[in-house]
Amino acid sequence: MSPPRQVFIAVIGAGGVGKCFLNQLTGLAQRLSQSPSSPYYLSLIWLSTSKKALYHADYKSLSNWESELANNSKPTLPLPQLQDYLVKAPGKVVLVDNTSNQDVADAYPSFLKKGISIVTPNKKAFSGNLQLFKDIFAAASNGSGAGGYIFHESSVGAGLPVISTLKDLVETGDQVTKIEGVFSGTMSFLFNSFQPTSGGGGKFSAEVTSAKEKGYTEPDARDDLNGLDVARKLTILARLAGLDVESPTSFPVQSLIPKELESCQSGDEFLEKLPQYDGQMDALKQEAEKEGKVVRFVGSVDVPSNAVKVGLEKFDKSHPIAALKGSDNIIAFYTKRYGDNPLIIQGAGAGGEVTAMGVTADLVKVLRLLH
Amino acid sequence: MSPPRQVFIAVIGAGGVGKCFLNQLTGLAQRLSQSPSSPYYLSLIWLSTSKKALYHADYKSLSNWESELANNSKPTLPLPQLQDYLVKAPGKVVLVDNTSNQDVADAYPSFLKKGISIVTPNKKAFSGNLQLFKDIFAAASNGSGAGGYIFHESSVGAGLPVISTLKDLVETGDQVTKIEGVFSGTMSFLFNSFQPTSGGGGKFSAEVTSAKEKGYTEPDARDDLNGLDVARKLTILARLAGLDVESPTSFPVQSLIPKELESCQSGDEFLEKLPQYDGQMDALKQEAEKEGKVVRFVGSVDVPSNAVKVGLEKFDKSHPIAALKGSDNIIAFYTKRYGDNPLIIQGAGAGGEVTAMGVTADLVKVLRLLH
Repeated sequence: MSPPRQVFIAVIGAGGVGKCFLNQLTGLAQRLSQSPSSPYYLSLIWLSTSKKALYHADYKSLSNWESELANNSKPTLPLPQLQDYLVKAPGKVVLVDNTSNQDVADAYPSFLKKGISIVTPNKKAFSGNLQLFKDIFAAASNGSGAGGYIFHESSVGAGLPVISTLKDLVETGDQVTKIEGVFSGTMSFLFNSFQPTSGGGGKFSAEVTSAKEKGYTEPDARDDLNGLDVARKLTILARLAGLDVESPTSFPVQSLIPKELESCQSGDEFLEKLPQYDGQMDALKQEAEKEGKVVRFVGSVDVPSNAVKVGLEKFDKSHPIAALKGSDNIIAFYTKRYGDNPLIIQGAGAGGEVTAMGVTADLVKVLRLLH
Repeated sequence: MSPPRQVFIAVIGAGGVGKCFLNQLTGLAQRLSQSPSSPYYLSLIWLSTSKKALYHADYKSLSNWESELANNSKPTLPLPQLQDYLVKAPGKVVLVDNTSNQDVADAYPSFLKKGISIVTPNKKAFSGNLQLFKDIFAAASNGSGAGGYIFHESSVGAGLPVISTLKDLVETGDQVTKIEGVFSGTMSFLFNSFQPTSGGGGKFSAEVTSAKEKGYTEPDARDDLNGLDVARKLTILARLAGLDVESPTSFPVQSLIPKELESCQSGDEFLEKLPQYDGQMDALKQEAEKEGKVVRFVGSVDVPSNAVKVGLEKFDKSHPIAALKGSDNIIAFYTKRYGDNPLIIQGAGAGGEVTAMGVTADLVKVLRLLH
């Protein structure tokens, strides 16, 4: 048996997901080093935030990254210099991008072409303009290219096996006809509270404020309510299902921000004025209730008709989408092989630990392929 | 770019799953041969049933396998001779075992040690005695050994991503606390008909007969009702979650065959006498109904208490297990990271096409690793 090979890990981002990932990485590295049969061992050689970076010119492993990052970091390097640093590492390199930064995403094709593999939850890379999406998979070894590998499970539904399942369906020749579901933990929580299947629920504006207070929304709740986050996820799934979706704004996306409030100067001003528009949402709720249904914020991809859309829809109370709990996501794949009853995946689709888990699982897959 | 490499495929079994797989394999091989960037192309060099085999001494690819198998096959070879034939193939070999044969399963460690990779839905290999399970993963390259790769997604829940999800959870350091679900399409259909959440449903014996007539049971329905099929699946999941389960009969498994009917000489005799015992099941149904619940046949693994069990349980009508439709399976993973709301996977867990899909997806994974 050959001695274990060193694999170098570079991490960008040390926020919510980044910190959880770094802890999972520490655990993974320990388990690998304790396994006598492991074909590789891991060295963290780069860790950066938007401003600071930790690294050694001689590729020595980083230790005590949390205190070192606070006390002994240098200014971060521009992306071309980072690429240069990683290309010269004495072994295979996996770049873990735990940001949602467009500039980093734009650099993926270049990194991949140089043989650097990438794992990431960064939606921007796969949901922005179509050419970037194509360039990434044209460069990657698990696309049509000969470069590094790329995996992005956590770009949709966090650690839930959504991307891998869709890829399996497509690669084995199944025909995906429709993908439908609740793709936002925020929207899930909001509508499960606004109109529970058991009845009741508060005014829409009150539920938004409550969700924000409980930490379920972005700092500015409008970043959830505009539907763009869900539109990005649908763009990714539609493209993987074979549709050439130009951008996340190239199909109908219903924003829950009333037209009159689009000009609000701040999230606080928006929340203050939102109650004036509760009437519209109340009417919708009552209309659904009369039909024995509930309102949910969903996204869908209809493959044969090339139609992607995001917005409010009514569902029978017994429908799995209606019966969702808490901030769970649910994703249903309708395919030729699965027939009338779709393949369904459900569970937490947001949160640091489960998002990081998808990234760590992707890292394990890359390690196996680099073996 | 290096020229595509030939990978040799050997298939044992041409029954329901086997035939679907062979069609999916044809599609996969075509897509690979049409993709200019594919790093490999596939050659089917062996196809056998329990008696007959199709192969050429010079490893020429098989064509028109359906008519050739009927008209021009030879007697099949004993497993050691098959191994010898495959070891001498001029390239990497993947053995696809689409049988549920114990002898083939027993030979896995030997095949793997010789560098032959295996993909299979054969439950016997992973749910029989614990030593075989350990020997398989000790030999395999994706276990602790240096041999071929082994994947067996379809051994639980057919093509549903059950095994891969559990492995991801474990490998990324999550703590799986409980696995619970409906693991049999037959049992799902039977109890969804016997006690629908909407009320009604027939006598138990009538539902068994009806399920058999609709093709949802084994030829002898007792092979479903004894619970062993579910026990095998639970054994596999429990072992992958880290429990040393000795065998599928080493934990409590509730059989739905009344004690008095265990001595029936035939499945027909059994079905004829079953109505005499409908009273027991009716009582259970009424007891559940009074509590606002329904009866379902489920399996569970409780990891911290090292407890595996299979049998009837009552569930609230709003519980996802109660709300299952048709012959769908549902599998819920409770873990430390996912907290109170489990990661749930749901959909068809039986049937030729979806079982074969899991096998084909595993084959794609092996091909990537052999690249």
